[in-house]
Amino acid sequence: MDYKFLGNDITRDTLKAMKPEEREVLCSEIRDKILNTVSANGGHLASNLGAVELTVALLSVFDYKQDKIVFDVGHQCYPYKLLTGRYDRFNTLRQKDGISGFPRISESPYDAFDTGHSSTSISAAMGIARARDLDGKKNYVVAVIGDGALTGGLAYEAINNLGHSKTKMLIILNDNEMSIDKNVGGLSKHLSKLRISSGYISAKQTTESFLKKLGFFGRGLIKIILAIKDFFRFILYRKKPSMFEDLGLVYYGPIDGHNMNDLIKAFDAAKDIKAPVLIHVLTQKGKGYGPAEMNPSDYHGVGPFDLNTGVTVGKNCYTTVFADTMIELAARNPKIVAISAAMTIGTGLENFQMKYPARFFDCGIAEEHSVTMAGGLAVSGFIPVVAIYSSFLQRAYDEMITDCCFMNSHVVFAVDRAGFVGNDGHTHHGLLDISYLNSMVNMTVFSPRDYTDLRRCLKYAVEDVKGPVAVRYPRGASPFETEEPLYQDVPDCVKPHISRDYGKDFAIVSTGRICEEADRAVEILKEQGILGRHINVSMIKPMPAKEIWDLLVGVKNVFSLEEGIISGGFGEALEREMQILGFESDVTVFGVRNPIVRAMSQKDQIKFCGLDSDTVASSIKSALSV
Amino acid sequence: MDYKFLGNDITRDTLKAMKPEEREVLCSEIRDKILNTVSANGGHLASNLGAVELTVALLSVFDYKQDKIVFDVGHQCYPYKLLTGRYDRFNTLRQKDGISGFPRISESPYDAFDTGHSSTSISAAMGIARARDLDGKKNYVVAVIGDGALTGGLAYEAINNLGHSKTKMLIILNDNEMSIDKNVGGLSKHLSKLRISSGYISAKQTTESFLKKLGFFGRGLIKIILAIKDFFRFILYRKKPSMFEDLGLVYYGPIDGHNMNDLIKAFDAAKDIKAPVLIHVLTQKGKGYGPAEMNPSDYHGVGPFDLNTGVTVGKNCYTTVFADTMIELAARNPKIVAISAAMTIGTGLENFQMKYPARFFDCGIAEEHSVTMAGGLAVSGFIPVVAIYSSFLQRAYDEMITDCCFMNSHVVFAVDRAGFVGNDGHTHHGLLDISYLNSMVNMTVFSPRDYTDLRRCLKYAVEDVKGPVAVRYPRGASPFETEEPLYQDVPDCVKPHISRDYGKDFAIVSTGRICEEADRAVEILKEQGILGRHINVSMIKPMPAKEIWDLLVGVKNVFSLEEGIISGGFGEALEREMQILGFESDVTVFGVRNPIVRAMSQKDQIKFCGLDSDTVASSIKSALSV
Repeated sequence: MDYKFLGNDITRDTLKAMKPEEREVLCSEIRDKILNTVSANGGHLASNLGAVELTVALLSVFDYKQDKIVFDVGHQCYPYKLLTGRYDRFNTLRQKDGISGFPRISESPYDAFDTGHSSTSISAAMGIARARDLDGKKNYVVAVIGDGALTGGLAYEAINNLGHSKTKMLIILNDNEMSIDKNVGGLSKHLSKLRISSGYISAKQTTESFLKKLGFFGRGLIKIILAIKDFFRFILYRKKPSMFEDLGLVYYGPIDGHNMNDLIKAFDAAKDIKAPVLIHVLTQKGKGYGPAEMNPSDYHGVGPFDLNTGVTVGKNCYTTVFADTMIELAARNPKIVAISAAMTIGTGLENFQMKYPARFFDCGIAEEHSVTMAGGLAVSGFIPVVAIYSSFLQRAYDEMITDCCFMNSHVVFAVDRAGFVGNDGHTHHGLLDISYLNSMVNMTVFSPRDYTDLRRCLKYAVEDVKGPVAVRYPRGASPFETEEPLYQDVPDCVKPHISRDYGKDFAIVSTGRICEEADRAVEILKEQGILGRHINVSMIKPMPAKEIWDLLVGVKNVFSLEEGIISGGFGEALEREMQILGFESDVTVFGVRNPIVRAMSQKDQIKFCGLDSDTVASSIKSALSV
Repeated sequence: MDYKFLGNDITRDTLKAMKPEEREVLCSEIRDKILNTVSANGGHLASNLGAVELTVALLSVFDYKQDKIVFDVGHQCYPYKLLTGRYDRFNTLRQKDGISGFPRISESPYDAFDTGHSSTSISAAMGIARARDLDGKKNYVVAVIGDGALTGGLAYEAINNLGHSKTKMLIILNDNEMSIDKNVGGLSKHLSKLRISSGYISAKQTTESFLKKLGFFGRGLIKIILAIKDFFRFILYRKKPSMFEDLGLVYYGPIDGHNMNDLIKAFDAAKDIKAPVLIHVLTQKGKGYGPAEMNPSDYHGVGPFDLNTGVTVGKNCYTTVFADTMIELAARNPKIVAISAAMTIGTGLENFQMKYPARFFDCGIAEEHSVTMAGGLAVSGFIPVVAIYSSFLQRAYDEMITDCCFMNSHVVFAVDRAGFVGNDGHTHHGLLDISYLNSMVNMTVFSPRDYTDLRRCLKYAVEDVKGPVAVRYPRGASPFETEEPLYQDVPDCVKPHISRDYGKDFAIVSTGRICEEADRAVEILKEQGILGRHINVSMIKPMPAKEIWDLLVGVKNVFSLEEGIISGGFGEALEREMQILGFESDVTVFGVRNPIVRAMSQKDQIKFCGLDSDTVASSIKSALSV
């Protein structure tokens, strides 16, 4: 479809020159393009639809070719990508060799910083602003951050430092009262008080007339802004200035994030202020697409869907199996509590929350606090299950060690999205968890292969393990469609299982979902007359090395297969533990050497890293023929 | 020395029954005991001296046998230890088999949570308070946190969550305007405004008489407190309520932290409030010992010293060599900037700060922000050197990966206190850094052995490496006393060096300071007729495997030695890279299996883990004789 404006070369000057009605048309064109692309490719929808006017206003005031705009997380960067030279490639969004769903400096000189994990934008922008000052340059630096991301401690550390340093930069607080789920936290209440107590600063009704009365602009604008703020505080009997001012920022707002005129005025005004400014903008998640406005959580991150019927939610996957099992376990033991870091729905815990509201805690986008609080619950005799995506749990690396492992506390880490995640790309892969969990003292680690195994491992982790324990499981559906056990030989999840057994020419020892590839590699080689076996291990720390050896007696060529980084991973641990026992052969490790694997399907990502059955089979074949 | 009160069985009731003069005597006795012990054993002095009245008041109001008190970091826990059953063992403070310098649940049932890293107390206390509520218990939960620790994002995440949850607990903000160095940040300014704008709420002059006028206590006290607060705000024309109230806490203060009466009244009042309360207490670091009052930074963490003459600062060590080299490098390249996370003096950067104030950034206790801001500086063409202790850098694990490594940004991590740290004990060891750095994509890692090597590696990291790079070096002085190079064979820090060469019976490949032990092990075995060699490696990632192989030709028995956790460490990487090249022999890895190594000297810790020359020599001997 051809658009009137979108797709042309759009600069600050063209945007500035547009009439208000024209900008409105541009905004609908952006929404149309996003809706059509995301419904075809999947992606982040609701947050991007909410940031359309905000982005057009930003680019009407700031020159993206000079100024630096950092989008926190990146769930709101699609309008920006469409307006900064990526319209032509936008239909490749999140596809193999296409453009990323997140800002990427490797993709465009106009993406100021790679994002993907929450709450980094203010810190990154501050570094960029400090560099600008040291260089004696004059360009503007802007961080766009959601109210959800602002619950992350990193954002607060940055504001604390920024308020002190007085570095000139602009923070746009894109407040949609949500992160992925409905926001919780004292900050969220504070923001809503700001909304209620001062009302919108609407240009049409008040600010404009007030400015007209004062009758002058430009350099003196900082004083005016401050005067306006105090004026509104005065006339609205606002008792509470914002905590942002307490921390040293100039606060302005809240303003209507879908009112282009107000936005442009506010951004223009901020340009003249030689201090860190926070502009509080109110937007609606999903704006312009009814289903997403009604249920923004369902339209946060979506797969391809039909624009007319909307998304369908709720097919079976590792996450739902985890969530169902949690409810069963909790029914049997009142000491079990569950913790989420702003991912109640993402981790499947919404039913747990409904059934056991007193035993469920959503801590906000605050992985660190979630883990340390779990440590507090554990030393008090409770069994906290902390459900966090593998890649986000990296944020709490230190807290896992010092606040859980060192005290040998029984905290259960439900590590969702372990392994490749598909189209979100490399910032979201869970490829490091085996490595970091392996290095943590007292930690027990499970990497189940299918739904039944996940259920068993989780039960064992909750009911039988005494110290910290992690159960890692991947995004998506199990390659094995049934929930029935796939192996009957050893129903005990702490022992290795024989998954295929044709002979002793070689053995693959695998862990987790990727065992599927190992099974098939053994079959492929069998057809070529090479008869091997496949041993699958669910409990990978402590490594059941003795039991694995028993299954490897007489096998000289041993290979390991895992969906994770090699350094510190499963294969290295296997090699080490077997060596300590005196096993003669080396283990050849198949795993991920470079975790920067871009967007494509999980299957393709596994293949890209040479971990698919075909590549594994041919690698084994060449190793055997040496 | 015998004390009048200290050393007796002290409970809440005995403390409550004491006359004010008697409590004063008790406080001096505590100070005397701390001064005598720390001057003999080393430890954290200034912060503990500042918290004496605070602790006595706490234990006069709360029953440590029922209530739970979490001390953030633990730099202020000595008075508590003295009053909760550890007086008799206090002279073993921080010694081998003695009591820890930090709270340890394994040491006493009255230590509520292990601490050591900053900003965890509110999260942990909140977990403990939620467990109490779920259990239907009524005991009190208190977090004691310094204003420095409050700059850590984790503390903010907890306050945000707490303000929303309304969980009943008490936060005592021990505000001494410092963390280890002078505090910086918007929060610090905010706290000082609170101090200035409202003045002390002094019981004698105002609160007491006000309460008397109102004439009733007990259940209604919450309303009184709030009334008092508003009253003072009113009479003092305070414009700004605190940001803590913005976030949903009941704020009370500031009060004089050395006025026992005021403290007890405030703590008593807080007991009745069914909401999270923050009491802002002002204390003086070093209180009662002149030299520490004058220079609290010098008396933060100290080694043994003479009470009459005070501490002496500034002997040569890895840290000072790093700091001196930084100044030399910065003189040659204006793009070099340095970043500290509230550890300007600890990392030796105070001279850099004086010489290049515009190029030095102290971010507060905010490791995450420090690293992400460095990422922003790096994408803007600067070369940020982030100096953080190995164990604290764990806090920024995720930021190192997503905000530096993924963009292949040239951020230099100066990883101080890598390896064993001695008497601070296991929470402070830098035993994980090789493992986590090894797993990070694009990261180059140096582990120099002595001062000259550190200088060379740092220079290479700053001037020659293109992507993220870490230089790790230990606490304390080099075993080699000179700054002259100890090896002349390969002056290039990216190549392995032969340190000893008597033959090919075996080889040790080592990295870092612990090479000293390897040298001696080779000597010991030589005297027994076993002739081996020692190869020392400074650049451990990428591993110079080919060059190492060249030095190992003809050697069948290879051992690796490192001062770090085995999983994902140097030895495993060596084994893997040699195996990939086709090297026939296994590498037997000597490293740390269990990092929970308690307080003792660094030498003893190395020995405890079997990494000293004697143990290494005898392990090699038995391996060879198999």
